Amino acid sequence: MSKGRLEAFSDGVLAVAITLLVLDLHVPDPGSGKLGHQLAHMWPSYTAYAISFLTIGIIWINHHATIARLREVDHAILVLNLLLLMSICVLPFATSLFATYLREAHGQHLAAAVYGGALLVMGVVFVVLNRHILIAKSHLLQPELSEERRRELLMRNIGGILPYVLATAFAFVSPYLTLGITAAVAVFYALPATTGFDRQPG
Amino acid sequence: MSKGRLEAFSDGVLAVAITLLVLDLHVPDPGSGKLGHQLAHMWPSYTAYAISFLTIGIIWINHHATIARLREVDHAILVLNLLLLMSICVLPFATSLFATYLREAHGQHLAAAVYGGALLVMGVVFVVLNRHILIAKSHLLQPELSEERRRELLMRNIGGILPYVLATAFAFVSPYLTLGITAAVAVFYALPATTGFDRQPG
Amino acid sequence: MSKGRLEAFSDGVLAVAITLLVLDLHVPDPGSGKLGHQLAHMWPSYTAYAISFLTIGIIWINHHATIARLREVDHAILVLNLLLLMSICVLPFATSLFATYLREAHGQHLAAAVYGGALLVMGVVFVVLNRHILIAKSHLLQPELSEERRRELLMRNIGGILPYVLATAFAFVSPYLTLGITAAVAVFYALPATTGFDRQPG
Amino acid sequence: MSKGRLEAFSDGVLAVAITLLVLDLHVPDPGSGKLGHQLAHMWPSYTAYAISFLTIGIIWINHHATIARLREVDHAILVLNLLLLMSICVLPFATSLFATYLREAHGQHLAAAVYGGALLVMGVVFVVLNRHILIAKSHLLQPELSEERRRELLMRNIGGILPYVLATAFAFVSPYLTLGITAAVAVFYALPATTGFDRQPG
Repeated sequence: MSKGRLEAFSDGVLAVAITLLVLDLHVPDPGSGKLGHQLAHMWPSYTAYAISFLTIGIIWINHHATIARLREVDHAILVLNLLLLMSICVLPFATSLFATYLREAHGQHLAAAVYGGALLVMGVVFVVLNRHILIAKSHLLQPELSEERRRELLMRNIGGILPYVLATAFAFVSPYLTLGITAAVAVFYALPATTGFDRQPG
Repeated sequence: MSKGRLEAFSDGVLAVAITLLVLDLHVPDPGSGKLGHQLAHMWPSYTAYAISFLTIGIIWINHHATIARLREVDHAILVLNLLLLMSICVLPFATSLFATYLREAHGQHLAAAVYGGALLVMGVVFVVLNRHILIAKSHLLQPELSEERRRELLMRNIGGILPYVLATAFAFVSPYLTLGITAAVAVFYALPATTGFDRQPG
Repeated sequence: MSKGRLEAFSDGVLAVAITLLVLDLHVPDPGSGKLGHQLAHMWPSYTAYAISFLTIGIIWINHHATIARLREVDHAILVLNLLLLMSICVLPFATSLFATYLREAHGQHLAAAVYGGALLVMGVVFVVLNRHILIAKSHLLQPELSEERRRELLMRNIGGILPYVLATAFAFVSPYLTLGITAAVAVFYALPATTGFDRQPG
Repeated sequence: MSKGRLEAFSDGVLAVAITLLVLDLHVPDPGSGKLGHQLAHMWPSYTAYAISFLTIGIIWINHHATIARLREVDHAILVLNLLLLMSICVLPFATSLFATYLREAHGQHLAAAVYGGALLVMGVVFVVLNRHILIAKSHLLQPELSEERRRELLMRNIGGILPYVLATAFAFVSPYLTLGITAAVAVFYALPATTGFDRQPG
């Protein structure tokens, strides 16, 4: 199977998911108070919007790099890719949950853990997909990569999950730690890279 | 007519439909009770989300396999493809209906039947499209397929509808049967295949 | 300018617009009465959904045929195409308005006229785009078409607007006439054609 | 890295963002008064819809022209492009805010400033992207452009931001000035150009 439609479909899903994030920015009701206060009060939504937007964008960049290494795709890659897209499409919900509960006395820890956990699941599925490609089906790679290089890529990919483990665990200390860690990851991967496209966020 | 834009348009519609499923995951109102309970209470939405996501994803895989067999497309294929997309685009609504009513005393059987029925209609339209391609317009196939092989593909396609007949009929016994059957179909087609891409879900 | 990205962008917009139509199918509130009655009561939404879906789908087919005739595109084609997309993107709103007001004592005529009018505007913009391509910029056509053939295509295109003039005007007699006419147009263009892709809906 | 997927992803995001604008056109509640009055009362929504639709459409045209000049893309271009898409995806929210508050006694100035400011941010990010391409990474251009021509393109791009500075500043005088200026910019760039695709809106 050619990879053209896999890329087209994945690009489409990622483009819709990243754009749907804006639906969580609600226009304040005109009768609900001073607009300036209302908009300032929405800062968790803006912050979560920016973090999730950058994160999905970086996933797209990494997805591109991952698929670009392939000569063709098999059924397992199609299904793992589908699971990856499923975990990404949940992010607008997790983002909205996180932003809604960030300052609530009840639920703020759980909501942050769900957000960190959603990013963690996405990262794990990405590792499983990468492991399948780099280790199990390395004959589909083009050009061929040495086993050392393949293991290095996978290790870096696994290392990219660690911040999301922390973001999920520290959610029970403070949701602001989750916010800070996930924001730092997004900014880190957006900064100029010296190592090309291989800095994988998860 | 080239099939490039048919594929691009179909990929786009499927990508949007599969991503819109997340809009059925609602963030619980902060004032409405303990967040943990609220999220746990939403399990029908998560389950229905996962089933519909995988099902649309598998339809996309099969759609790709179906169109890949064609050299070019005619007006009837365009219109049948449009009807197929129409039946798929209804799935976010049917999914939401099913999840909302799964535990309601009234309406749960009908909602489950609507969900099973929507998948059934989609499966039937897919068979009609496949029949048109494999039997009526087999001269559009590339490479050519023997009549035996074409009938075999169509039979397997028709066989793929049967679970949805059961899912719809058993909705009137219990909506959980509909849930179980449609989930089993989604998982079955996602499992590693020994027969390539020909396991068609409908 | 190459037409590849014009096609890709147009396909994307049409794919999103056609899929957003489903957002007008609302899941009835569990406490609001018998589900069967509720769903049956929603038939204007289903009907309007089907008409608009088929109509946008046919526009997509005709859009493809129109752009396929071009060797390259100029600024005016880009802008006219943008206006066409703008008129198409309004259809989910017009469809929802029509379905909501079809059986209301007040507003049903106006809502039907808005629906017919939205289709009419879209048809007129399509004619303007076609006129620009076929008459003003016929040197961009590939292969070249005789003036007779170009005028014939444009005339057929203009003829395709007439039903929408009727659908808009008769809205003030009965909104069901608007429903019938727009449905008839959608079915007519979906039926097997003997004349290829040239049956333009507007 | 090839630019094909950058274009595909950007086209997808722009197509979704431009189509989501229609979600701000709300169908009036049947019980809320005369439909004609209600629809007439919604004119700020229609106007803001048209302005934002044309503006995003013109950004798409300019984005095409910008990327078409590139031979390949680097990490910085990917990230700057992502920031550009992020600023564009905010526009449906800013448009809705502007339309909702245009005639409110309180908040109308701030809402207009947010709208003008969102367009201004988008314009500034576009300039930063263009500056990176035209000045810092001019070796990625194909065909090569003289330094004079590159500076001219960038200057024209910077000039395109000025109206949005005015639209933002004059919001505090009257939101209708913001409306007028942003509408004028959209119409200006949609008018027949003598200078090709280089009239950049921001």
